[in-house]
Amino acid sequence: MINAGFNPIHSVTVTDQSGQLRTVQVASEKPLTLFMNDDKIVTLMTLGTHPKALAIGYLINQCLIKQIQEIQSIHVNHETIQVTTVADEKTHCAVTAGCGQGVKLSFNQLPNIHCSKLKIQKTMIDALLYTLTQQNEIHRQAGGVHSCALCQGTEIIAFVEDVGRHNAVDTIAGLMWLHNWLGFDKIFYTTGRLTSEMVMKVAHLGIGVLLSRSGVTYKGIQNAQEIGMTLIAHAKGRQFLIFSGEKNVIFD
Amino acid sequence: MINAGFNPIHSVTVTDQSGQLRTVQVASEKPLTLFMNDDKIVTLMTLGTHPKALAIGYLINQCLIKQIQEIQSIHVNHETIQVTTVADEKTHCAVTAGCGQGVKLSFNQLPNIHCSKLKIQKTMIDALLYTLTQQNEIHRQAGGVHSCALCQGTEIIAFVEDVGRHNAVDTIAGLMWLHNWLGFDKIFYTTGRLTSEMVMKVAHLGIGVLLSRSGVTYKGIQNAQEIGMTLIAHAKGRQFLIFSGEKNVIFD
Repeated sequence: MINAGFNPIHSVTVTDQSGQLRTVQVASEKPLTLFMNDDKIVTLMTLGTHPKALAIGYLINQCLIKQIQEIQSIHVNHETIQVTTVADEKTHCAVTAGCGQGVKLSFNQLPNIHCSKLKIQKTMIDALLYTLTQQNEIHRQAGGVHSCALCQGTEIIAFVEDVGRHNAVDTIAGLMWLHNWLGFDKIFYTTGRLTSEMVMKVAHLGIGVLLSRSGVTYKGIQNAQEIGMTLIAHAKGRQFLIFSGEKNVIFD
Repeated sequence: MINAGFNPIHSVTVTDQSGQLRTVQVASEKPLTLFMNDDKIVTLMTLGTHPKALAIGYLINQCLIKQIQEIQSIHVNHETIQVTTVADEKTHCAVTAGCGQGVKLSFNQLPNIHCSKLKIQKTMIDALLYTLTQQNEIHRQAGGVHSCALCQGTEIIAFVEDVGRHNAVDTIAGLMWLHNWLGFDKIFYTTGRLTSEMVMKVAHLGIGVLLSRSGVTYKGIQNAQEIGMTLIAHAKGRQFLIFSGEKNVIFD
């Protein structure tokens, strides 16, 4: 149900800086147009491997549905996905998110968020980062994608790559809703930057620890501190920097 | 007029992987809510250095205005920007773009695009890449941003950093409209990935050469080949790979 089995990698012939021909692999990117009760919501450009989870996560993160029980059916047909809800709601107007361009989720919608004060050991972070580097297959083969992972201790529960970092996050959100996975004991990993939108989306999932290979923005830090999220960036190899929630990290 | 002089960098105290305190710098990220004729269009999360150019580029790239002459006035007030157009058009519904989440521009709107067959020398690309690495100040100091540059030969005409790669592209587009710069003799550089949206936006600017430090998607390559754009990715140091338009590169 979750994975449409779309081939995410293509081989192409390129010319390198010496004028020599080479064959390299690149990531797919295909349009997925999302309809809800026959209203066109958005066209997402995606790697295409998890259309249903992406659609569910997108609708929830855009606040177009509140919980998965509102969904009556989902049909994927080539480049379109049709979601029918129980209440046959009309959206009238679609507002989209991504890359800081169109914010729908907000911290005003987080009145009951109490980030779990999950304690994590430094040795566990090191081990998890090592495991994560073994996972990013499409990035290793083709580049041009971002990865997100849902982790519990050093175990990777779900790993998603997509051409946009927000698609990857939304897909993980969709998988969590599909499988009824709770966030309080999980760690969220992303190769993308920790902007305020990323912090918000992960907070909405009830996850208290957010880990990134990339950097962080000032607003991302402020928001994480407000809700008590543990925010770790520049996490690569055995190095990382804790921007919020340093008391939750045990230096063992 | 263009640059609001907002301070884009903050110093923060962090804990490193050894439990030691360190001071690092991070990029700002502030909401900029864009109104057009009193309709709220979108809230962009931005570094905040070029609000007017970002707003103009966003409106044009979202096809909400067709040319800068439609704009009667622009007022920036802290976290909002109000654009008034001559025709007092109502948008009714805002659709946003970014990171593959919400595509508005399309290749169907490119009936007259003939990418300039600008010839570029390998030695010029090398020299330009060297110059560009000297420029990315905020990235070097704070990380967490993407850069875009508009170049003519080895000269950098405009250089923009922002927290989202689409904001940076939209800002360059806005600067080009503000200054009446033509695209046919320019080169567009970005640190972001070359997805189909990026190729489309640059094609709409009339620019025939697109250069990236990052990777490329298969659809980005297909689109570039369709319109005859020279597409060069993985451009770093003296290395690069040409994915489209290799005949326009002279190996001198």
